[in-house]
Amino acid sequence: MPLLKSWVASANTSDHPFPLNNLPYGVFSTEGAEPRCGVAIGDMILDMAAAEEAGLIALVEVPLFDVPYWNDLMEEGPAVWAALRERLTNLLAEGSAEQDKVETLLVPMDAAELHLPLVVSEYTDFYAGRHHATNVGTMFRGAENALPPNWLHIPIGYNGRASSIVVDGTPVRRPWGQLKSPQHDMPAFMPCRRFDLELEMGAIVGVASEGPITVQEADDNIFGYVLLNDWSARDIQAWEYQPLGPFQAKATATTISPWIVTKAALEPFRCETPAREFELLDHLRDCGPMLYDIDLEVTLAPDGKTASTITRTNLKEMYYSAAQQLAHHSTSGCPMNVGDLLGSGTISGAERSERGSLLELSWGGKEPVTLDTGEVRTFLEDGDTLTLEGHAQGDGYRIGFGQCAGEVLPALEDPYAR
Amino acid sequence: MPLLKSWVASANTSDHPFPLNNLPYGVFSTEGAEPRCGVAIGDMILDMAAAEEAGLIALVEVPLFDVPYWNDLMEEGPAVWAALRERLTNLLAEGSAEQDKVETLLVPMDAAELHLPLVVSEYTDFYAGRHHATNVGTMFRGAENALPPNWLHIPIGYNGRASSIVVDGTPVRRPWGQLKSPQHDMPAFMPCRRFDLELEMGAIVGVASEGPITVQEADDNIFGYVLLNDWSARDIQAWEYQPLGPFQAKATATTISPWIVTKAALEPFRCETPAREFELLDHLRDCGPMLYDIDLEVTLAPDGKTASTITRTNLKEMYYSAAQQLAHHSTSGCPMNVGDLLGSGTISGAERSERGSLLELSWGGKEPVTLDTGEVRTFLEDGDTLTLEGHAQGDGYRIGFGQCAGEVLPALEDPYAR
Repeated sequence: MPLLKSWVASANTSDHPFPLNNLPYGVFSTEGAEPRCGVAIGDMILDMAAAEEAGLIALVEVPLFDVPYWNDLMEEGPAVWAALRERLTNLLAEGSAEQDKVETLLVPMDAAELHLPLVVSEYTDFYAGRHHATNVGTMFRGAENALPPNWLHIPIGYNGRASSIVVDGTPVRRPWGQLKSPQHDMPAFMPCRRFDLELEMGAIVGVASEGPITVQEADDNIFGYVLLNDWSARDIQAWEYQPLGPFQAKATATTISPWIVTKAALEPFRCETPAREFELLDHLRDCGPMLYDIDLEVTLAPDGKTASTITRTNLKEMYYSAAQQLAHHSTSGCPMNVGDLLGSGTISGAERSERGSLLELSWGGKEPVTLDTGEVRTFLEDGDTLTLEGHAQGDGYRIGFGQCAGEVLPALEDPYAR
Repeated sequence: MPLLKSWVASANTSDHPFPLNNLPYGVFSTEGAEPRCGVAIGDMILDMAAAEEAGLIALVEVPLFDVPYWNDLMEEGPAVWAALRERLTNLLAEGSAEQDKVETLLVPMDAAELHLPLVVSEYTDFYAGRHHATNVGTMFRGAENALPPNWLHIPIGYNGRASSIVVDGTPVRRPWGQLKSPQHDMPAFMPCRRFDLELEMGAIVGVASEGPITVQEADDNIFGYVLLNDWSARDIQAWEYQPLGPFQAKATATTISPWIVTKAALEPFRCETPAREFELLDHLRDCGPMLYDIDLEVTLAPDGKTASTITRTNLKEMYYSAAQQLAHHSTSGCPMNVGDLLGSGTISGAERSERGSLLELSWGGKEPVTLDTGEVRTFLEDGDTLTLEGHAQGDGYRIGFGQCAGEVLPALEDPYAR
């Protein structure tokens, strides 16, 4: 598929994240107006509440877009998702008969504030990158026992905390927590000293389910994808995670990018999962190309300094797809809801430069990373801004995700001061 | 405090769960009318939507009770909670001037269907019973390593799945899942063979918080308590739980009792936490008597047979209180919301007859439990009905919780048949 031309000129350059092929869904506000649904096209946002009000978009009998979330549209189901995408494509394509009407409903992106694009029902985080799991396992248990016995048979995951999800640009405060240094006998309550990022993608469930669903059904139920940074307090995690898994180490914040890139926009970029050592059991088996070829990059900018790229990798490194994760999530009869968010797990490639966390990049703090500024990092320092970016590269166009950034604020001096 | 007399005669017997001292909050429906808020008094339910409509209860300017959840009342905060309790006590007390008006708003409990009493925002499950953690740890890691090193310093917990919460009486279907028998090299996807209960209590967060809160603040933020059965698939759990904790093993269902017993009703039953081996760090230290003296009992009734008591224990066996769990939950800055539900962890006493799960009662399946009918159980069988009950024993009255029951339905024959 080539670049689809839009009458919004800025959408027609080959490296723009938001061409007509993309049409990602966000929530924006402008001065004096409440947050509402919008669609990115080039440097502009189509005000969906206004488009609906003007009668330009009328998919169902109830209004869907004058709300600060896309959950209402998701609830309408895949046929309406497809109808919306087709309608938007027609409205915004070069030569559209309705260009005059639509033009008045565009808002410059740089005049808008972006918000969380959905109400997150529940949040689950997986651990589905083989390089990441191998790296972490090697550090903690040695190379011979790097992968737990279950890892090659099920996508390991844990429930995260939906209340901690924030949108791109939200500063993240270094947490306090209970931790124990190897040289001390007793734990202490103190600010985290090993604060880290995790480069992930998030899949958004758009169709509810009640019982076990197949991988194909799971794939059909996914609405779209975002970038996701699962901020992690490694020292808190090390002390708390046995035997029931990460808890407060992952509860400070999880940042997502503001635009939901639809599954439809990513169709041309599907690719196969990697070769498997063991065939997956029937209920988890691939039902086609399940991953996406999406280039990912993380930059770190120390306070007031230029940003350095600290990792470059690709979503196709994952061992399990979001559809396989969702299918596994449903096996017990767990009810899945519209707005559930599934984190992919940290995305790391085979090379050092492709690792998706500082834990791996600095090999547990033993091999500091040197930035372009000459500074070094083992874990994050106060004032560091982390930015995740990603895009799928088409033939003369890109499907971009926008940014997923956050600055690390210093820990509170006294967490109990009021 | 003695029994407070009500003009509702059934509330005045010494062993009734719902005397005037209790006044628990539920959601009920009657034929032809939608679910709405109600208060239990003896064998009756006070229709709160009707009482509000009649002008008998007017705490704030907006209606609070013509909805199928108590979250709106919780949102109003502790001063309004106290005002409501005082008003209800006055309306229902012997000699109330408004008895005639209120009498018409009572619905017989046996004509009502009970529903979930709240919208559960997120669900967290703890592991805060020392006997339970010691029993499970001894089975899995040997007596010397029974408690993980962190256990005596922080209330270990993990995020559960809010979508799986159901109310008393909801049947629970035996789940399928991936599991691996010790005698097999490879895992298989099959129905759970070691399906279990966990006797717990649930604490309901009634006030939202953003940063770390003290134990006293946490206690102030708790609205009330319910009984909770954390159904657990032990064989699925054994295969999946390393390294990130329980996931699908705990996602089939979690049953809660239909009546929220308020913290206010339980005040007379506060008691101290057990002696501690290590002093807790300042931010987790007891700020008064933090537990409650609540007798708990579980019965198991095989299909069509009489029920046998399989365990009797007490909430005061716990090592950490709900307030300490909530304080720990907030340490990382994790936002806590109105309607968050915190499971206490399995409540087991020191004796075999006081263990709160079949895993412990049958010592991992090795010591079957004999029921009064002569049948034996290691884990649950299809058709078994599990019932949790609990009450605090006052001087001539009881604060009861109602029932928390569920029948085990057989696993689906083919989980992917549509």
